[in-house]
Amino acid sequence: MKTVALVAYDTFTDIDLFLAWDLLKRVPELDVQIVAPTPTITSSTGVTISVHGGLERVTGADGVYVTSGAGSRAIAKDVAVLAALGGIEPGRQIVAAVDSGVLILAALGHLRGKRATTYPAPDLHDALASYGVERCDRALVVEGDLATAAQCLAGVDLVAWFVTRPVSAEAAEASVASVRRLAD
Amino acid sequence: MKTVALVAYDTFTDIDLFLAWDLLKRVPELDVQIVAPTPTITSSTGVTISVHGGLERVTGADGVYVTSGAGSRAIAKDVAVLAALGGIEPGRQIVAAVDSGVLILAALGHLRGKRATTYPAPDLHDALASYGVERCDRALVVEGDLATAAQCLAGVDLVAWFVTRPVSAEAAEASVASVRRLAD
Repeated sequence: MKTVALVAYDTFTDIDLFLAWDLLKRVPELDVQIVAPTPTITSSTGVTISVHGGLERVTGADGVYVTSGAGSRAIAKDVAVLAALGGIEPGRQIVAAVDSGVLILAALGHLRGKRATTYPAPDLHDALASYGVERCDRALVVEGDLATAAQCLAGVDLVAWFVTRPVSAEAAEASVASVRRLAD
Repeated sequence: MKTVALVAYDTFTDIDLFLAWDLLKRVPELDVQIVAPTPTITSSTGVTISVHGGLERVTGADGVYVTSGAGSRAIAKDVAVLAALGGIEPGRQIVAAVDSGVLILAALGHLRGKRATTYPAPDLHDALASYGVERCDRALVVEGDLATAAQCLAGVDLVAWFVTRPVSAEAAEASVASVRRLAD
């Protein structure tokens, strides 16, 4: 059984978090936990949920998947949060981020000199540049054991990549196939 | 301002509910509420949320969108639930359902002699046939003011249709464009 820490925080984007959560929960080989700075978190639209544990759980996980939300700008400058996420280590772990969650990986230094994609917002582009990230405006950008995705529905691609590495391509396809729209 | 009742219940499928919820909440012209038989509901994966009101609120809504979950089989046979949903009226309202949520509209009699799609499970196919539904295995099936969609990600198509009718095609496109994966 591989463990996954799904990182979220107040203002999280519903689709980003729950698309990844539901797809990952369809993979029997994964133990998935939502981790956050606080015991409960509320989305940008007002949905409140309880989480499974604190951010420090990322250290023991086999994979870390960082979701997005307007609050990522503040999170990326929060010394205590960055310290709690200090155990993230691409290579030892599979690491992924979507949309503005990419900013958090950049603030942790994991994207310096690497290519990454993000939500197409000018402030995110500027912030990534300040962390030495080479921006690449595509749906999915893979750099070894680290991948980034742009706009919520690219989360499907990101999850497929994320599951393939520690489990298998077959497990990834089984998960995605169960939600893919029927053919016309 | 148009009102939307998003119908959910215990065992709801996370992606189905939250994809529709987040996309609909991106449309400023809509007042969206999640309605359910109980004040809190828990998804098939264990996510618990508070809802905005009871099922009877469907009666006053301009649009009703029924989400899915394994519990739909029991819901479709629950006399009290069906009575509470008795105010659903395609024509007066825009009505949509995804995956096994289609079964609930069928049990209410709204799909008799009409075409509809659903999640590709044999028991759902049999149940729809018993309600006189003409099955049509496609991502999106539109019958006037009523539409059905098959497999979670077809929810994007269903929301686009659902928003276009009472608001505008532009509003629908703006919502979907904000989550559509970046082009490769």
